[in-house]
Amino acid sequence: MTAQKSPVTVLGLGPMGQAIAAAFLASGHPTTVWNRTASKADALVAKGAVLAASPSDAAAAGPLVIVCVLDYDASDAILLPIADVLKGRTLINLTADTPARSRTAAAWAAEHGIDYLDGAVMSPTFTIGTSAAVLLYSGPEESYRAHAETLSALGGSHTHLGADPGRAAGFDLALLNIFWTSMSGLAHSFALAEAEGIDAADFAPFAQGIIGLLPESITDMAEKLNRGEFPADVSSIASNVATMDHIIHAAESRGMDPGPLGSVRPLAQAVVEAGHGGDDITRLTRHYLDNRS
Amino acid sequence: MTAQKSPVTVLGLGPMGQAIAAAFLASGHPTTVWNRTASKADALVAKGAVLAASPSDAAAAGPLVIVCVLDYDASDAILLPIADVLKGRTLINLTADTPARSRTAAAWAAEHGIDYLDGAVMSPTFTIGTSAAVLLYSGPEESYRAHAETLSALGGSHTHLGADPGRAAGFDLALLNIFWTSMSGLAHSFALAEAEGIDAADFAPFAQGIIGLLPESITDMAEKLNRGEFPADVSSIASNVATMDHIIHAAESRGMDPGPLGSVRPLAQAVVEAGHGGDDITRLTRHYLDNRS
Repeated sequence: MTAQKSPVTVLGLGPMGQAIAAAFLASGHPTTVWNRTASKADALVAKGAVLAASPSDAAAAGPLVIVCVLDYDASDAILLPIADVLKGRTLINLTADTPARSRTAAAWAAEHGIDYLDGAVMSPTFTIGTSAAVLLYSGPEESYRAHAETLSALGGSHTHLGADPGRAAGFDLALLNIFWTSMSGLAHSFALAEAEGIDAADFAPFAQGIIGLLPESITDMAEKLNRGEFPADVSSIASNVATMDHIIHAAESRGMDPGPLGSVRPLAQAVVEAGHGGDDITRLTRHYLDNRS
Repeated sequence: MTAQKSPVTVLGLGPMGQAIAAAFLASGHPTTVWNRTASKADALVAKGAVLAASPSDAAAAGPLVIVCVLDYDASDAILLPIADVLKGRTLINLTADTPARSRTAAAWAAEHGIDYLDGAVMSPTFTIGTSAAVLLYSGPEESYRAHAETLSALGGSHTHLGADPGRAAGFDLALLNIFWTSMSGLAHSFALAEAEGIDAADFAPFAQGIIGLLPESITDMAEKLNRGEFPADVSSIASNVATMDHIIHAAESRGMDPGPLGSVRPLAQAVVEAGHGGDDITRLTRHYLDNRS
């Protein structure tokens, strides 16, 4: 006979909330769920979840409450009215929003005696419960440790990033910024290729090849940022501006939007004009930081 | 005794031209070089290169002339005056510029009886002569085949993409668009992380993790583009707009430039407003193509 697993409550049953609740159920945790539209719980109830009639009833079911909804406006709407029920329990907010919202939520939780962790799910819904799941947490380390075994039901890698409750959201946003900027570049590049008569299937393997250069560039950028020196080992930002010009002109000659680099080019040019044209593009990070208003 | 290797001329000795000439020398090809600033040839001459006094003398040295300079304005300045010397030889232009410039150059070459291939070097200078080099060519297939063995001295993978002389430049620009958009996203994300108190070295491994999701996304995008259907298997472009808003707000709350996604967001929003909010971001490729002026 295995030990009784700890009960878990999941508030919010969008695609990610459903995947999370399903993973807890699959690993034997008594799981209570709630969603504004109750029918979203049907498949989970069929697998053994208990559907609560209200967020308050759901939260009362156990020591750990996980919320994962659209944004913090949505999580506030659910959580603020049930502060008294959440008191003394651990609340983990896996909703994606800004670091500032996470810190505000943590301050509210502290005022109400709620143990609060903020988290971010960095991998798609289909990874939840598998070895490919990636989850980040920030807030009190002892709270994380107390629930780490329960959270392991979600599979994959779990990292506690530190006590600042906004830290997971900071990682989340900066990582999503990488992903969606790259995806936007891919979307524009497939369009540029098609405009030049290049089939998407012919283009894809080369696109994968060039993406394969990025991990080493990331190591290099981090090393340069910590050193505060940005030598152009491979190419200078002045030559990058020339490349951006070729891309923008090619797009515009096809009547097409210049794409994401259309807005990057003036900043790269400003770096050159500031006398750093011989540095590499990592200097752009400092430009962003040094020109904050 | 090994067979005599075919002579090669390299015009232009910037970092890439130097790497190319060095690779030919290293594999035993008699190599003639020319550069506007002759001192750039010193290291190559020490390794056995012949320094020609003029582009004309350099081109006269053998059947294959490779040019690799800043852009097609620069290559035109070198090549147009020596059309008579180039006649009957093969000219491979590895200079990066737009597909339109490549096609113009090919038309000029055809008028002057010059066998012309256009090419693109898709990997950094340090890969030249190693298995990591990636080179693309377009133009007459028989010209490519005639020189493929000589070109193999540059190492790595060589792909002939087709007869359209602009095709290599089309691949080149679309691939550079991917690379530099992603690099710009990384530069902005490292800034966003630092503004949130996250050290570059702590951030880098997670950045590499998220980049690791892109190759599968590329396969998925190509498949959707060829099918002409863009179902949101993982996330909808409507939810991507919400994510972009979080990123942009977080940057702006730190007084920082919104980054590359600042210019992508209105286009993604236009896709949503056109009734495609339930599709995934691949729909943005069609938006770029369908809204050409």
